[in-house]
Amino acid sequence: MTAHSTIGAPAIVAHGGRLDAARRLYPDAPQPWIDLSTGVNPRAYPLPQLADEAFTRLPDDDAFAALDSAARRAYGAHAEVDVIAGAGAQAFIQMLPRVFPAKRVAILGFTYAEHAACWAASGAQIDVVETLDALANADVGVIVNPNNPDGRVVAPEDMLSTTARMAQRDGLLIVDESFMDFTPERSVARFAHGRSLLVLRSFGKAHGLPGLRLGFALCSRARAAELRAALGPWAVSGPALAIGARALADDAWRASAAHAAARDAARLDALLMQSGFQIAGGTTLFRLAAHPQASRRFLHLAARGILTRVFAEGPDWIRFGLPKNESDWDRLATALESADGR
Amino acid sequence: MTAHSTIGAPAIVAHGGRLDAARRLYPDAPQPWIDLSTGVNPRAYPLPQLADEAFTRLPDDDAFAALDSAARRAYGAHAEVDVIAGAGAQAFIQMLPRVFPAKRVAILGFTYAEHAACWAASGAQIDVVETLDALANADVGVIVNPNNPDGRVVAPEDMLSTTARMAQRDGLLIVDESFMDFTPERSVARFAHGRSLLVLRSFGKAHGLPGLRLGFALCSRARAAELRAALGPWAVSGPALAIGARALADDAWRASAAHAAARDAARLDALLMQSGFQIAGGTTLFRLAAHPQASRRFLHLAARGILTRVFAEGPDWIRFGLPKNESDWDRLATALESADGR
Repeated sequence: MTAHSTIGAPAIVAHGGRLDAARRLYPDAPQPWIDLSTGVNPRAYPLPQLADEAFTRLPDDDAFAALDSAARRAYGAHAEVDVIAGAGAQAFIQMLPRVFPAKRVAILGFTYAEHAACWAASGAQIDVVETLDALANADVGVIVNPNNPDGRVVAPEDMLSTTARMAQRDGLLIVDESFMDFTPERSVARFAHGRSLLVLRSFGKAHGLPGLRLGFALCSRARAAELRAALGPWAVSGPALAIGARALADDAWRASAAHAAARDAARLDALLMQSGFQIAGGTTLFRLAAHPQASRRFLHLAARGILTRVFAEGPDWIRFGLPKNESDWDRLATALESADGR
Repeated sequence: MTAHSTIGAPAIVAHGGRLDAARRLYPDAPQPWIDLSTGVNPRAYPLPQLADEAFTRLPDDDAFAALDSAARRAYGAHAEVDVIAGAGAQAFIQMLPRVFPAKRVAILGFTYAEHAACWAASGAQIDVVETLDALANADVGVIVNPNNPDGRVVAPEDMLSTTARMAQRDGLLIVDESFMDFTPERSVARFAHGRSLLVLRSFGKAHGLPGLRLGFALCSRARAAELRAALGPWAVSGPALAIGARALADDAWRASAAHAAARDAARLDALLMQSGFQIAGGTTLFRLAAHPQASRRFLHLAARGILTRVFAEGPDWIRFGLPKNESDWDRLATALESADGR
């Protein structure tokens, strides 16, 4: 099977969402492809009609202030916490090592690879650690919470005590809350007013609009001033400003979306367990499932036009996003069933 | 007149397009405001209906390749020139000092302030110079061409000889062609395959869609690899990828837009000269006009709901963008006429 050699191809596994690469590798797969390779909510926030001005005018300060204010409220941040909008959480991940350079960076692993990649590119020494104790000794600590891909959660009180320990040595704890929207009670965004805690939030994942490129950093005013200077003016597009401000003010949608995602996650768990997978973790937007023949299952699904996500670091794992509609659920169930028989 | 004290207010003059600040300063001005404070084309590229996927999916490599390819063709770049898309020319201006740090930076002045601001923030020593000779001795030279606000043009052959001189000392010439779209014969984008030339292009200004946040860098493959690594994945939104690829392939629109802008620029010159201004320069997207009572004229227009752009560095100057429609032309003519009588 030639296809086996492609499972490690960077094009298809470096990130989720690489349907373009999948299409080339499996040109004969049934159409349309079902993309379960990301943790993006398949039930997107309803797109409003955008005013032409969102495109034809430079975003102005009032629009940024309105967005920041909606984000502050949605994330429950104190008035002393500064909120900065950028073109996606990834934009901040790229920028943090340049704006707040550090020598020794500890990352609570295994996790989303871009943190280590961006800090390493800045020349930092990276330690992937397994405990908060090990993390607290670094100049900068990074925790993805809840974690991608396994959903590991660090409790807010542990996060704050780690922050306090790092503060003693003027360290910085970066908490990437990209998948926190549906469990706001676990967020430490509201406490990010001090110099030693910086929280990242993603807009696109929970709202199902990753193409919009919108994310936030929450931190002290001094750090925020440095980030703003690095981002420069107009760091967020007009459509992102308009849709973001509206969606972040929509608590009812978010509550309903959280409910739907939790229901779908439970349904996905049941389906996967029925097909011989063990649930290894995840959030309500994606499930990490273990199977002794994970790579064969990945290929089996891909040949049937269903893209999931595998990890070189966890050969038994497949990460599944949530199917979008009953037709996608049916195709996934059928594909998993046909794999069982082999 | 209290209003006089506000002319230097950073909120209204730091950049064009600050209608929010203007509205606060002149709450009683006639509505709607006419924004002539930018060099953005008022005749925007017609917005296509966007597929939901532009918002609901992460932009993939194929979409970036399609956009880069359209940009390469539109800018007439050789195959050896690498083309990188980012969230506006400003995003590159912010990033260049971090990716290609330099000690001595020379900027052909007077020009768009963000180049000096971003290089200064990186710790570089900035010299604002008046000749290409003076510029060629720096580690990095910056030329905005055609220049904003006065429209000064450096001929392609002079640009290339300056590049060659800088190359001898491994220097870098950055040419900001944000206002080059309607005079493509003067662009050096096609020659930016070497290590010593990097060209910036803006999409939003000529296409009238600055809210989209889209711009390009054209440079050598080695520099492009460094820029791409710094930008990270998904540096451009789905709407910008879709609209950009379509608009950059539309040569007929661009030709017609160039014609319309040239006609409007000539009409604006005539109107301004009739009102006692001297034309100091500009491009076909904005005109720089001199008047001994420029600041009074600025305030007079603002009180009538017409926002223009003044410069602390040139107290006699007002920069005018192009009016959008006959109603705006009429209001401008009437406002200028009523100023003449004072």
